[in-house]
Amino acid sequence: MSGRTFRHSHLLSIGQLDRDDVTQVLDAAEAFVEVSRRPVRKVPAMRGKTVINMFFEASTRTRTSFELAGKRLSADVVNISGSSSSVSKGESLLDTCKTLDAMRPDIVVIRHSASGASEFVAKRVRCNVINGGDGAHEHPTQALLDAFAIRHAFGTLSGLKVAICGDITHSRVARSNAALLGKFGSEVRFCAPRPLMPSGVEALGVRVFHRLEEALEGVDVVMLLRIQRERLEGPLLPSLREYSRTYGVSQRHLELAAPRAIVMHPGPMNRGVEIHPALADGERSVILDQVEAGVAVRMAVLYLLSGDAGTRTPAQAASIAPPGN
Amino acid sequence: MSGRTFRHSHLLSIGQLDRDDVTQVLDAAEAFVEVSRRPVRKVPAMRGKTVINMFFEASTRTRTSFELAGKRLSADVVNISGSSSSVSKGESLLDTCKTLDAMRPDIVVIRHSASGASEFVAKRVRCNVINGGDGAHEHPTQALLDAFAIRHAFGTLSGLKVAICGDITHSRVARSNAALLGKFGSEVRFCAPRPLMPSGVEALGVRVFHRLEEALEGVDVVMLLRIQRERLEGPLLPSLREYSRTYGVSQRHLELAAPRAIVMHPGPMNRGVEIHPALADGERSVILDQVEAGVAVRMAVLYLLSGDAGTRTPAQAASIAPPGN
Amino acid sequence: MSGRTFRHSHLLSIGQLDRDDVTQVLDAAEAFVEVSRRPVRKVPAMRGKTVINMFFEASTRTRTSFELAGKRLSADVVNISGSSSSVSKGESLLDTCKTLDAMRPDIVVIRHSASGASEFVAKRVRCNVINGGDGAHEHPTQALLDAFAIRHAFGTLSGLKVAICGDITHSRVARSNAALLGKFGSEVRFCAPRPLMPSGVEALGVRVFHRLEEALEGVDVVMLLRIQRERLEGPLLPSLREYSRTYGVSQRHLELAAPRAIVMHPGPMNRGVEIHPALADGERSVILDQVEAGVAVRMAVLYLLSGDAGTRTPAQAASIAPPGN
Repeated sequence: MSGRTFRHSHLLSIGQLDRDDVTQVLDAAEAFVEVSRRPVRKVPAMRGKTVINMFFEASTRTRTSFELAGKRLSADVVNISGSSSSVSKGESLLDTCKTLDAMRPDIVVIRHSASGASEFVAKRVRCNVINGGDGAHEHPTQALLDAFAIRHAFGTLSGLKVAICGDITHSRVARSNAALLGKFGSEVRFCAPRPLMPSGVEALGVRVFHRLEEALEGVDVVMLLRIQRERLEGPLLPSLREYSRTYGVSQRHLELAAPRAIVMHPGPMNRGVEIHPALADGERSVILDQVEAGVAVRMAVLYLLSGDAGTRTPAQAASIAPPGN
Repeated sequence: MSGRTFRHSHLLSIGQLDRDDVTQVLDAAEAFVEVSRRPVRKVPAMRGKTVINMFFEASTRTRTSFELAGKRLSADVVNISGSSSSVSKGESLLDTCKTLDAMRPDIVVIRHSASGASEFVAKRVRCNVINGGDGAHEHPTQALLDAFAIRHAFGTLSGLKVAICGDITHSRVARSNAALLGKFGSEVRFCAPRPLMPSGVEALGVRVFHRLEEALEGVDVVMLLRIQRERLEGPLLPSLREYSRTYGVSQRHLELAAPRAIVMHPGPMNRGVEIHPALADGERSVILDQVEAGVAVRMAVLYLLSGDAGTRTPAQAASIAPPGN
Repeated sequence: MSGRTFRHSHLLSIGQLDRDDVTQVLDAAEAFVEVSRRPVRKVPAMRGKTVINMFFEASTRTRTSFELAGKRLSADVVNISGSSSSVSKGESLLDTCKTLDAMRPDIVVIRHSASGASEFVAKRVRCNVINGGDGAHEHPTQALLDAFAIRHAFGTLSGLKVAICGDITHSRVARSNAALLGKFGSEVRFCAPRPLMPSGVEALGVRVFHRLEEALEGVDVVMLLRIQRERLEGPLLPSLREYSRTYGVSQRHLELAAPRAIVMHPGPMNRGVEIHPALADGERSVILDQVEAGVAVRMAVLYLLSGDAGTRTPAQAASIAPPGN
């Protein structure tokens, strides 16, 4: 049995994916999640392929997740950070990426502070590009791993109510999640204080809330976003303490949600600010499942973009032992 | 023939090890030291295992040594440095480590400035933890590699006299070495100026000296510790020049020691301060042997913690060629 | 058929190589350039070998190029940057390198701001050393990759006219290229404003120009050097704008050169300063070919230094698939 090829050369945004594409990625991730749980956490599916992690913004979890995903597929992975790079010598993003492209990587993962950076690059290089987060625009692999965790909890991505609470203005995670969940007919609610809620966000198909208690009413998923301290400085903004008191979610808020509700956070968490520690560590929290899903989803995306999926299904690729074991 | 399993899940301190444990590690390192000397410096013993080096403090030699040890065992190794990590975004040590743990590494090596950091983490994660140095507390793989070099020189760890000279107050190396050598019935002497000698240190079973000449009398091992310039600033402390004159060890001090005495230093050295260059490079110096032993000892620790030792002895594991050669 | 061994243990400068050595490297690179273009971009030629990239100066392209070259040969590659290293604790270059050497790498690539650094180290360590750029002295792999691109364009390295324009004073690239091309009887021209042209440079066998139009007259190769902004500060120096106007090369300058002339730049480029964007992206530009050649040439150098070339020719080494594919 041969697999189904992925119809995209790049993963730049959730916007480019239809429901079948999302399902194809999540199903592939189901096959790969098992690999990381084995005694031998590795398959030869991408042996001889090159993945470059080009992170112009600092990141532990996303970079490490992509690095592990690549290595567990037996790809060669090279990390480049913005600070140590030619960028610090004034080279343009495009020249840096075209230079890397000339070294013939198969896939480049780009994280950059500018919205649209990875799309701009993808149009101008030979290799496949994955958007690892571009400004406040999109973070598609985060939305896919969140979808993986949600589907795991509820068996579906449809007909759910999902509240995303926090600094919506600066959140690529909120945008990518709203786009993905909207495709499957789930209701997405954004909740933030007015200065952290962009105007016109209803165009994304979401419902807008400013009071936490209203936003959480009957939801299946409570997704909290990291609030960055430096974003809470300004005359119109609440202090960290005020934010925590008004928008920090604790165990008692969960009573407003559906009985089966789960709690999510993309990390890193500000415990005691947007999320109460007892909630983060509670039995409804799937925060660490999200992290595990992250490696599996990135393995799926890397594998599907590598083109091998036309030859072997992800399940077949995940079942082959590496040589020498 | 099957091997003997290691009875520990973590390597957090020398204190947790008994003499048999230490001997098991050193014997395994004897098997692995040979691997790094071959034309093909690699065995497949940990193929498909994941090792994460989580270094919250900068380090070249320890991080590189663990990285090479992992790679020569065919493990996948991922490096994370504190500065580029979520820690710089204010995430707690525990959240960072639980996040990494959710990515299903087999072993995490932690270096951290807080005493007890790795033990704190080890109790709360699924993976195996190695203490790569925690504050002024312990640096167990350093003590094990020192023991490897001492055993290589004298054939035993018992009945020796070992002088450890330098900034005892801030030295995890001194503590771990005293603990290890004490277990084998060797006499450990600490020598430092009073402001750099913690009170109550006799409880470790060591003899305390403040004069170099007395401390070195008849010893088999002269172990010097790096003195950090920034530690020599204060009204009670000697200047760097005074320190060098009073506690810097040169060739002539070696005449006080036993005829067969060896000179050790964990590095990086301050040549001309705690150690005279001619001594560092002299025929009694085993400083570079310590470095080589470091890779072998870390291969041994990684291998024993990986659980494979129950299936194959380290000697068996070290004798298998990697695939494709 | 067995291969021909390389007669050098280190690659420190172009000065050490004769024409046959250069040709041996370039021919090996021809065999390896194909590896990076395959679906499986990897051969097992250096499996079990260790390469350490020791970069005391920041670099994206050279470090990444060496890292990819090593990984595509199946070597284990470890990166060390000056900032995170013991060097920041005051350890000497030699102690750092002897420490690394004791970990038994096969090859260490050194980039350092001091001229002669890699040669100084090479005389004192066991492993093979590659100069990855030492101050304003030499950058031999850059000259070799430039030669690869030139030979690819013209089929020869002899009888050509090559203009190297820019900050000659600070350019190791200019020195290494002049040395290499001189060996093959090509004419090398240096062109720079007087404050950026070192005195006595004619001793390298080059012709000195201060006017761009004269330097470019009839040349086959226009090689531009990056001008660093911070070098253009001083009473005798042109401003960036003046530099760009007087020494910036654009499409119209190409009319002065030979009809078949190619445009080269080692990167990173300052578009609009030393090179006009249309020229950088034009059909005569081989700038990205240089980057691709860089990986192939570094594979060749690593392979030849590893000693395997006595057993298998580079072409044989490049034709073996990695295990498990």
